[in-house]
Amino acid sequence: MGELQRRLTDFAAARDWQPFHVPKNLAAALSVEAGELLEIFQWLTPEQAAAVMDDPGSANRVRDEVADVLAYLLQFCTAVGVDPVAALAAKIERNELRFPVPGGGAGGAAGGSDEGAEG
Amino acid sequence: MGELQRRLTDFAAARDWQPFHVPKNLAAALSVEAGELLEIFQWLTPEQAAAVMDDPGSANRVRDEVADVLAYLLQFCTAVGVDPVAALAAKIERNELRFPVPGGGAGGAAGGSDEGAEG
Amino acid sequence: MGELQRRLTDFAAARDWQPFHVPKNLAAALSVEAGELLEIFQWLTPEQAAAVMDDPGSANRVRDEVADVLAYLLQFCTAVGVDPVAALAAKIERNELRFPVPGGGAGGAAGGSDEGAEG
Amino acid sequence: MGELQRRLTDFAAARDWQPFHVPKNLAAALSVEAGELLEIFQWLTPEQAAAVMDDPGSANRVRDEVADVLAYLLQFCTAVGVDPVAALAAKIERNELRFPVPGGGAGGAAGGSDEGAEG
Repeated sequence: MGELQRRLTDFAAARDWQPFHVPKNLAAALSVEAGELLEIFQWLTPEQAAAVMDDPGSANRVRDEVADVLAYLLQFCTAVGVDPVAALAAKIERNELRFPVPGGGAGGAAGGSDEGAEG
Repeated sequence: MGELQRRLTDFAAARDWQPFHVPKNLAAALSVEAGELLEIFQWLTPEQAAAVMDDPGSANRVRDEVADVLAYLLQFCTAVGVDPVAALAAKIERNELRFPVPGGGAGGAAGGSDEGAEG
Repeated sequence: MGELQRRLTDFAAARDWQPFHVPKNLAAALSVEAGELLEIFQWLTPEQAAAVMDDPGSANRVRDEVADVLAYLLQFCTAVGVDPVAALAAKIERNELRFPVPGGGAGGAAGGSDEGAEG
Repeated sequence: MGELQRRLTDFAAARDWQPFHVPKNLAAALSVEAGELLEIFQWLTPEQAAAVMDDPGSANRVRDEVADVLAYLLQFCTAVGVDPVAALAAKIERNELRFPVPGGGAGGAAGGSDEGAEG
């Protein structure tokens, strides 16, 4: 991750793109790319969506959009000085306290509610 | 990254959330969280946005949303079997061919056009 | 629509919000609000999503997010001087040429492909 | 608006697209199109963004994306049975109580905070 962040920084610097890579623009670009990933799935049934990688064209498109999302997330993190891995590790620890594992198997509806509260 | 993916998988499994964590839902959740990160910046000037980490409350919110975006990106990648680091490394290599470093310092406008083509 | 646009303009002007209501910020806010509408549906099955208005709390949330999306769309249109109804009428006419009605009933897969091309 | 909703419904029905036009898919498509509108602005300074309609190509792109956002918003509203104009009128009335007009001219910072609370 750190190495990818450095490569992205060097890539942008070599092309004089840093003036564009300010936090607000990178947050917008991240959101735009996440939308492009979602676009692949928007008209698919859940079953079609689960099989998206079976089609080589769709699989390439998915990998490409994943790369774009990760690229802008890392560039955003560089711009604001946030360590994304540390941020996620801390969040998982908070969530382990916030959503304790239920004693018995919680049903789908309960899981759904928990998920609703997760954001 | 691999370890974070495993922790997220275990976290969801322990709470019976896997039925919700299908590719289409995770792509939607990723887009929603990227929107929540953008929300922090939507009314800020570029200058205010660049100073977002100076305010402890905003800084916490940024770290929290970065964690959410990375969490859903990694869970999406687990669900579709994509290695996000390999996908980004391959994309950087393609982009190095696609956007060769200009001999002289390209100006901002050119950089902007290149950026427009990047997505 | 024109009347709503005027009310939104007056509302923002009375609160000195115009400096924030520039095109880039309004486009970001529109995207953020569309994400909040999507959030309601992200973990739902298609069947649960189709019944979203049966629950009064969800129904209120849907109406609230629809209002936010339309508000920012109209304020964006005011800021850039675009008539949204005229823009959509022109687009429907273009699409009628671009996607001619198939002679026989086209199947779901064909419809899905057309939809994919629509964006 | 009502007439545009009818035209969009007829357009989709003639092409057998209704099975795709369920609430969850339309909410996703609305978010994707809002992202495409934002994409036009993502690397622009506020000044460049304010002049976006001066360039005929950008102006056409803006009108096209506005049409797409409005189209999916109206189709979503048809699918869930929400009147978008009534929803927005009700929201404006609620917001008039929630954000009373300040006696004196509130400064930019206060306006920004209000905006932050608006979503």
